[in-house]
Amino acid sequence: MISRLPEGLTTPALVVDVDVLEGNIARMAEAGRGGGFALRPHAKTHKCPPIAERQRAAGAVGLTVATIGEAEVFAGQGFTDLFIAYPLWADGDKARRLRRLAETVSLRLTADSADGARQLGAAVRGADRPVELLVEIDSGHHRTGVAPVDAAAVGKAAADAGLDVRGVFTFPGHGYGYGPQARAQAARDEERALTEAAEALRAAGLAADVISGGSTPTAALADQGAVNELRPGVYVFNDATQIALGSCTPDDLALVAAATVVSTPAPDRFVLDTGSKVLGTDVTPWVTGHGYLPDFPDASITALSEHHATVVLPEGTKTPPLGSRIAVAPNHVCSAVNLVDELVITRQGEIVDRWAVAARGANA
Amino acid sequence: MISRLPEGLTTPALVVDVDVLEGNIARMAEAGRGGGFALRPHAKTHKCPPIAERQRAAGAVGLTVATIGEAEVFAGQGFTDLFIAYPLWADGDKARRLRRLAETVSLRLTADSADGARQLGAAVRGADRPVELLVEIDSGHHRTGVAPVDAAAVGKAAADAGLDVRGVFTFPGHGYGYGPQARAQAARDEERALTEAAEALRAAGLAADVISGGSTPTAALADQGAVNELRPGVYVFNDATQIALGSCTPDDLALVAAATVVSTPAPDRFVLDTGSKVLGTDVTPWVTGHGYLPDFPDASITALSEHHATVVLPEGTKTPPLGSRIAVAPNHVCSAVNLVDELVITRQGEIVDRWAVAARGANA
Repeated sequence: MISRLPEGLTTPALVVDVDVLEGNIARMAEAGRGGGFALRPHAKTHKCPPIAERQRAAGAVGLTVATIGEAEVFAGQGFTDLFIAYPLWADGDKARRLRRLAETVSLRLTADSADGARQLGAAVRGADRPVELLVEIDSGHHRTGVAPVDAAAVGKAAADAGLDVRGVFTFPGHGYGYGPQARAQAARDEERALTEAAEALRAAGLAADVISGGSTPTAALADQGAVNELRPGVYVFNDATQIALGSCTPDDLALVAAATVVSTPAPDRFVLDTGSKVLGTDVTPWVTGHGYLPDFPDASITALSEHHATVVLPEGTKTPPLGSRIAVAPNHVCSAVNLVDELVITRQGEIVDRWAVAARGANA
Repeated sequence: MISRLPEGLTTPALVVDVDVLEGNIARMAEAGRGGGFALRPHAKTHKCPPIAERQRAAGAVGLTVATIGEAEVFAGQGFTDLFIAYPLWADGDKARRLRRLAETVSLRLTADSADGARQLGAAVRGADRPVELLVEIDSGHHRTGVAPVDAAAVGKAAADAGLDVRGVFTFPGHGYGYGPQARAQAARDEERALTEAAEALRAAGLAADVISGGSTPTAALADQGAVNELRPGVYVFNDATQIALGSCTPDDLALVAAATVVSTPAPDRFVLDTGSKVLGTDVTPWVTGHGYLPDFPDASITALSEHHATVVLPEGTKTPPLGSRIAVAPNHVCSAVNLVDELVITRQGEIVDRWAVAARGANA
C-alpha cells in the first residue's frame, strides 16, 4: 500500500510507491522460479523503461508489448528480446517498421490466420536474424486466436513464409470474467488449450517449445503443467479490479491516483479532481463504481466525468474537508497509466523521482 | 460524415474530415447568432489550437477549459480570454500558476463554496487585471455547484476576496442522462436554475450579467431566455453518443477512429485494432456497445480491450476481409482525442495535415 501521499503534490497525479512496486516484481519473479516458468511481463501496463529494467533485473527473459510502437520505444531503451503479442496486419508502414525491428532485436510475433502469418513473413523477409512466431490460441476468451485444432494450419503458413515457429500463446482473458471464481477455470482452460495446440504443432512437424500463457489473475493459479512462460502485466501496480478478483490485497497497491477534494455539495458526498482523464472509465461487474479508496474502503465513486469523481460515503462517515488529498486506486491501471505523461515515484511518502510513461499513446 | 479513410493509413489513428469540422463550427456559430447567445466553446474536447482558431474566427468570445494546464497551453498559443470552468482548489503550485495566468490573459474562474472562492482570491491577489468569477450552480446534474438559492453566499465571499463576480454558470450534464428526452428537460432546468441564481446574486448587490449554460445536447434546445452564453464542446466532432441522443446525425461526424480488421475468428464476428486505448471505454445506456460504425450501422462492438474491438454483425452481413480499413465513431470523443498525440486531418479522403493534441494529458 502507498504509505502516504507526498505533501503539497499537484493533483491529479499518479503516484507510485517504489517499495511496493519492487516487492510486487520480486514476488512474481519468485513465483516464476518456484513454478518453473519464464516471465515475459507485459509492458503495456507501465510503458515505462525503469520498471522494465527492474523486471529484467529480477530475471524476466524479455518483454511482451502490444504494438509496434511500444516495441520501438523499448528497443530504443536497450531491451533486446520483444514479443509483440498481437495479430498484426503488417502492410505498408507497419511492414517497414517490423523489418527494422527485426534487424535490431530478437523479435517474436504472432498470428491467428494463415494470411496474417504470410503478411508477417513477407514483412520481415531477408532480415539478418530469424523472427520467431507463436500461434495465437483462443483458450476461452473468444477474442482473437484460433481453436487449438487449427494451430497447425497457421503454424505451417508461418513456417512456409520463413518465420521461426516456436510454439503457442494465449490470453486467458476470461479469467477477468464471470466472477472471481473464473480465475481457476481460466487457468485450467489455458493449460488444456495450449497443450492441445502444442501437440497439433508437433504432429505437423513444427516446434512447440514455447508454451506461453496468461495474466496477473491466473499467474499464481495455473497447474503449470505444460505452460513454460507467463506474461502478466498488471501485477507490478495492481488495481481495484485485482483486489476484487482476489489476486492481490490493498497492501499490494503500488500505484494510486492522488486526488484533491474540490467540492463537498452534500453531507454524504464529495467530489475529487480525479476524473476519467486520469482514472480511465473501465468498469467491471466485480468493482462497485470507478475506483477503490484505501482510506475509505466502503465509499463508492458513483459517477465519473472527465475531471470529477463523485464519492458517496456510507452513512455516518465524516466527509473529508475541501482541499484534502485522497488516494484512489483505478479500476484498470493500464488505462490510467496511459493517461499521464509521468509517474510520480515515492518512497515513504517522499517524492524520489519522476518516470516518463515513455510508450504512452504508442497505439500503432 | 468522413467521406473516406485515407489510403494506406497506419491504424489505429483518429481521422478528422476538416470540411465536416468546419461545417459543425459554422452551424453552432450560426445558432449562437440566431439565439442571441455568446459562444465560449469547451476546448477540452479537441485540446487543439487549430480548432480553437476556427472557433474564434467563427465568432467565439473566448474558450472554456477544464484545467490550469489546458489554460496554459491555449494561453501559450495566443488565446487571451479563458474560462477555467472547474471549482479549483488553488493551493501550492496551482495558486502560483493561476497568478501567472491572471497576469497574461483575461481569466475567468468559478467556485461552488465560499472557501474555494477565498482560495482563488488569495491566489490571484495583486494581479494587474481583474479576475472574473462565475458561481457554479447545480441545475440538476448533482455533481458540483450550489443550489441557486446559495449562489449569493459564494458570490459575496468571492467579491470580498477581490474577485470580479460576473454571474453564474452550470453544466446541465443530466442532458446526457435518463434517455434522449432528457435533453429538453435539462435545457429547461438550466434556464430556471441560472435565472434563479442570477436573481439571488443581484438581490445581494452583485453583478449577474453573464449567464452561462450548457452543452452540445442542450445547445440547440434551450429556451434561451436568460442564458446569454453557451459552452458546447463535443459539437465540433460529434460522436456515437450525440447520434444516439439525436443532437446530430451520422453526417455530422467529423472524427472517426480508423481501424484495420486484424482477425476474423467467426463468420459473424471480426476484430479491429481500435481498442480502449484509442476509443476510450465510456459507455452510455443509449449506445449499444463501444462505438458506431458508419459503414455497418447495425453492427455492435460487443467487447473492447486495450487494443481489440470485437465487432458482431447482424445475421447475413458479410464480414470484411482481413486488412480492411473501417471507420469507428467513439462513444465519447473527448476521451478518444485525449488518447492520441495527433489528429490526422483529411479533406475528401486525402491527408492534408496533422494537428497535435497540444493539451493532451494536461490534467492538472
